Amino acid sequence: MNSKLDKLSINVIRFLSADMVQKAASGHPGAPMGAAAMTYALWQKHLKHNPADPSWCDRDRFVLSAGHASALLYSLLYLTGYDLSIDDLQSFRQWGSKTPGHPEHGLTPGVEATTGPLGQGFGNGVGMAIAEKWLAARFNKPGYSIVDHYTYVICSDGDLMEGVASESASLAGALGLGKLIYLYDDNKITIEGDTANYFNEDVGARFRAYGWHVIGPIDGMDPEAVDTALTEARSDTTRPKLIICRTIIGYGSPTRAGTGAAHGEPLGDAELSAAKECLGCSHLEPFQIPAEVHASMSARAIGEARQLEWQRLMNRYTAAFPVEAAQFQDFLAGNLPQGWNDGLENMFKPSEKPLATREASGKIINLIGKRIENLLGGSADLAPSTKTVMEFESLFGASNSTARNLQFGVREHAMGAVLNGLALHGGIIPYGATFLVFYDYMRPSVRLAAIQELNVVYVFTHDSIGLGEDGPTHQPVEHLAGLRSVPNLVTIRPADAAETAFAWEMALERQDGPTALVLTRQKLPIFDRTEMGAATLTRRGGYILWQADDNPKIILIATGSEVHFALAAAKIIQGEGIASRVVSLPSWEVFEAQPQAYRDQVLPPEIWRRVSVEAGRSLGWERYVGCRGVIIGLDRFGASAPGNVLFEQFGFTSQHIAKAARTLIGEIDG
Amino acid sequence: MNSKLDKLSINVIRFLSADMVQKAASGHPGAPMGAAAMTYALWQKHLKHNPADPSWCDRDRFVLSAGHASALLYSLLYLTGYDLSIDDLQSFRQWGSKTPGHPEHGLTPGVEATTGPLGQGFGNGVGMAIAEKWLAARFNKPGYSIVDHYTYVICSDGDLMEGVASESASLAGALGLGKLIYLYDDNKITIEGDTANYFNEDVGARFRAYGWHVIGPIDGMDPEAVDTALTEARSDTTRPKLIICRTIIGYGSPTRAGTGAAHGEPLGDAELSAAKECLGCSHLEPFQIPAEVHASMSARAIGEARQLEWQRLMNRYTAAFPVEAAQFQDFLAGNLPQGWNDGLENMFKPSEKPLATREASGKIINLIGKRIENLLGGSADLAPSTKTVMEFESLFGASNSTARNLQFGVREHAMGAVLNGLALHGGIIPYGATFLVFYDYMRPSVRLAAIQELNVVYVFTHDSIGLGEDGPTHQPVEHLAGLRSVPNLVTIRPADAAETAFAWEMALERQDGPTALVLTRQKLPIFDRTEMGAATLTRRGGYILWQADDNPKIILIATGSEVHFALAAAKIIQGEGIASRVVSLPSWEVFEAQPQAYRDQVLPPEIWRRVSVEAGRSLGWERYVGCRGVIIGLDRFGASAPGNVLFEQFGFTSQHIAKAARTLIGEIDG
Repeated sequence: MNSKLDKLSINVIRFLSADMVQKAASGHPGAPMGAAAMTYALWQKHLKHNPADPSWCDRDRFVLSAGHASALLYSLLYLTGYDLSIDDLQSFRQWGSKTPGHPEHGLTPGVEATTGPLGQGFGNGVGMAIAEKWLAARFNKPGYSIVDHYTYVICSDGDLMEGVASESASLAGALGLGKLIYLYDDNKITIEGDTANYFNEDVGARFRAYGWHVIGPIDGMDPEAVDTALTEARSDTTRPKLIICRTIIGYGSPTRAGTGAAHGEPLGDAELSAAKECLGCSHLEPFQIPAEVHASMSARAIGEARQLEWQRLMNRYTAAFPVEAAQFQDFLAGNLPQGWNDGLENMFKPSEKPLATREASGKIINLIGKRIENLLGGSADLAPSTKTVMEFESLFGASNSTARNLQFGVREHAMGAVLNGLALHGGIIPYGATFLVFYDYMRPSVRLAAIQELNVVYVFTHDSIGLGEDGPTHQPVEHLAGLRSVPNLVTIRPADAAETAFAWEMALERQDGPTALVLTRQKLPIFDRTEMGAATLTRRGGYILWQADDNPKIILIATGSEVHFALAAAKIIQGEGIASRVVSLPSWEVFEAQPQAYRDQVLPPEIWRRVSVEAGRSLGWERYVGCRGVIIGLDRFGASAPGNVLFEQFGFTSQHIAKAARTLIGEIDG
Repeated sequence: MNSKLDKLSINVIRFLSADMVQKAASGHPGAPMGAAAMTYALWQKHLKHNPADPSWCDRDRFVLSAGHASALLYSLLYLTGYDLSIDDLQSFRQWGSKTPGHPEHGLTPGVEATTGPLGQGFGNGVGMAIAEKWLAARFNKPGYSIVDHYTYVICSDGDLMEGVASESASLAGALGLGKLIYLYDDNKITIEGDTANYFNEDVGARFRAYGWHVIGPIDGMDPEAVDTALTEARSDTTRPKLIICRTIIGYGSPTRAGTGAAHGEPLGDAELSAAKECLGCSHLEPFQIPAEVHASMSARAIGEARQLEWQRLMNRYTAAFPVEAAQFQDFLAGNLPQGWNDGLENMFKPSEKPLATREASGKIINLIGKRIENLLGGSADLAPSTKTVMEFESLFGASNSTARNLQFGVREHAMGAVLNGLALHGGIIPYGATFLVFYDYMRPSVRLAAIQELNVVYVFTHDSIGLGEDGPTHQPVEHLAGLRSVPNLVTIRPADAAETAFAWEMALERQDGPTALVLTRQKLPIFDRTEMGAATLTRRGGYILWQADDNPKIILIATGSEVHFALAAAKIIQGEGIASRVVSLPSWEVFEAQPQAYRDQVLPPEIWRRVSVEAGRSLGWERYVGCRGVIIGLDRFGASAPGNVLFEQFGFTSQHIAKAARTLIGEIDG
């Protein structure tokens, strides 16, 4: 690993990356120049991948958690033979290019995760390793290790300071994820400079405390040392590994190496030339790749051979275990099994006692979980409250790798990042649960699920002041608005158990992004649908639940637990001769995706007397109630008291809604 | 500490807490029963406080990070003599009571922080200790330690799993906060049960890696052992301390002790009686306090004596150092110095070159920071980008305690919790900075600042796609909606440097909650105000920036960097004979707090042709554009390209705005 060609290759990676930044006049040259040797050793000697088929399921996963070093990743992808051209590298960070400022999964072949917000890739890796471990435990047979790959993550000082990485590391240690190997690019420099003043902990000791196998510190600039460390790391399959690689940020840059100045801006032509000279590469023109480097680094031949070898194994497996093989392929394809949703439609009868939508969700999980055998999920230490345990399944843990109930501990943010990793890996349909108010703890991960179009399901329970005595710290008020503000996130807040069944169905059918199910702690009546809109209309996001007659004068619009208040109010004013319509609007996003004609049918523009009811901030409800409507919302924090008292105190009662409706009718007519 | 009276006192704390939960039929008995001995030892032997004056500035701070154990805290406050009655305890978790489900600062005397969302109190403690260390370094003189108190925090397994606690612990270690003492209630039980499956790390080793002094594990049920450990902890003032206290959750409960069942629901009458019997307390009626316990635990006399002693010292200090004493009192009172905002109004001239609002903010910080000598702040490792360094000041660190520039490292969440701690402690005006997109990482802390009405200033820069090449992971789209959704948070997005000066003024003048300043990366023109609304109108949240004549036909409303596009569009359509008004709306919250007459003057209801322009989600803009207006927003994630390209591609141009205005005029007139 220390041949002349190795050294040249490493320098080519460095300068190709620095050239990209220079041409873009924007970007991060320091990390690629410092971490080139580390990643070269990994990619050249260890990484199992086939650049011609980035979707090969048994490839090793490589996550660049320090996503700002994207130029490094693009260089490696290009040099090893992925579908990237030198033109792509030259259009780094430009509109429409395949080489954006931070790596984007789904855009660039070979990019396993969208990274950049620090710590996220660290957590994604843990999810990928859980997926590998679970799939291997489920499908491998003696002599047939069809699932057998590592997850490699490059992480930085910044990653390791982020709480989400700490949470994920602690979880990975508890789970004994032995196929997880992290290379820590330990350069002791972040944007504010030398980390000594704010990050002087003993990282190795910390990770040992988590139960990790820690290797190093080694010289991360020496590919031989990294190669040796990786070999050691791969030999221990009982614990996650951290290889501490001492590196120099911006290595080669005569005036910026080892300083914060190398981090986030182009070196400039003069400094870049000087750096090339410094490392003996004056001959390298911008974007020049010596033919011998390209030949030596191309992984196409070896990658193809390895995939072929795996394919032969898979063929033998398919012959020997046809049922398992078919299921394995179904899992990977994301297919839901035939009949997975049978009976969902009629699962809840109005004759039943009132049921919290979290309880309904629990029953649904336990019905469909038996059928969808790759549904895995759990809660951030709130499973008894979120009702997200598959009762027929045991708990996934270090010594129980086939189980499907995950326990994230009190680590919402790691949960979010791990769910993304599970989804990115493929083969698994993941869900995660916590109280809605704690969505705040995992927002960065939810955002990345939405950006990456990952099919993750979030179960957010205790969705309003209805949770009661735990008080304002636990009562979401602004969180529905928060969920609705995220592009490509579908939020569904069902009004009763029957709507909840369809909400789950919609979540699992979705193929291009995450879904948040927003559920109550408190019991809710199950609507008798005989003279009402069918619960299946939940699938349209909003629908006419009930109306007094065909000429309603006013529309009451509500979501979730407030729908039954609206319905009761409608019946009160019906008794007073005011004909109204009640619209249940469980999902804004889904409703807004309906044809205009349908939306106008549910909310006819000519009926502009409207009242909305939702126990959360009014922000955005103007969209539905229009200019002269009334929004019954909650524009302050909650309080500690029994839930029914709070609904009373804050005006979420049928009487108060009826009064608002009356006033609106009176104002206009009077 | 093991007398019969000590033991009885501890049991009284246990059962008073359990009685509260039982009467409320809701709450958490397990943690109070397990942690009663620990907290008794601390409060009886170490805690310096005066129940008669909970605002005494040199009291020790006590934070119950595990806020669900609130009954324990209320029991201690009651027994030691704070202004709480037995009636208050009996109305635990009821509407209007002083004893809500989780502790609420400002509501209950003696509650130092609103806690409950796990990990937050842990981080608050770090902020409090920074405040103490800074104030002590600034004001103490040889022989005059007027600032000399500890911060004690009770934390749970759940706290220690949260990333915000990890971040805060790492920071506290780096800063060598020697007056910080944490008692870890190590009961190995969380809601999902035994933590072995998901939290088996070596916590002591982890904290030693952070640079903490770790004591134990000790028997946390033995007050003598806790007392000894606390004495050891107080003797080391160079490192933060973690005392690992092994405890049994729900201690005494015959069937639930040591299990998750003890955590979050009342024991029930039978189990509670059995527990009393089990601990030899059958004689204790519900809410009964033996007189000798009350007498022994009351801290009123000793507290008064200690405060008096301190007051005498303070009096001598005042005589010897009158200037410092006056400033100390001003700091504590939160007074801004005379003339602190002189010249702010005219700080930026339109003749100057375009200036990013982050740059303007940096200049403002450097002007007012010199005058407001207790303004402390920093960034989560983005100071060179957020422009939040006070250039005339050095960096706060383990060996530099008088400095005012804080470095939080890449730890946004810890930053949020620490800022809250600084504000809660008093004497300091804190600010913190990061990119707007990373507000997501610190939302739980920002929410708690808003709930607690803390005067924290957030500087969120890189506030839109205008940041350019870093791409969608770094471009906030939904974050303005997110900020606006939080009750009691004031968000200000200034349109130019002059508005930025007033935004800072408003933030510092605010006395009842946090303020978020939302600033650009990119340069913006400074408006020539000669024929325009004065920048001082920023103080009203929204104002008429410019209009073609007194009878505008259409209103263009914009915020921040989009205002100059709107202005250019207005001039384009003016040339076409369309008279328009441009409204700059930097703060929705402040504008909405103006009298209706003012709001109607700025946005007259009769001018219903309106266009809003903001490079973020359209959510909520219906409020201002009304039923027939047009919202120019961004309802997707951004992209990686230079900022000016993105503004073009996504329709944020004067031409596109002009076109929307024309269409609106045409539609109505045509």
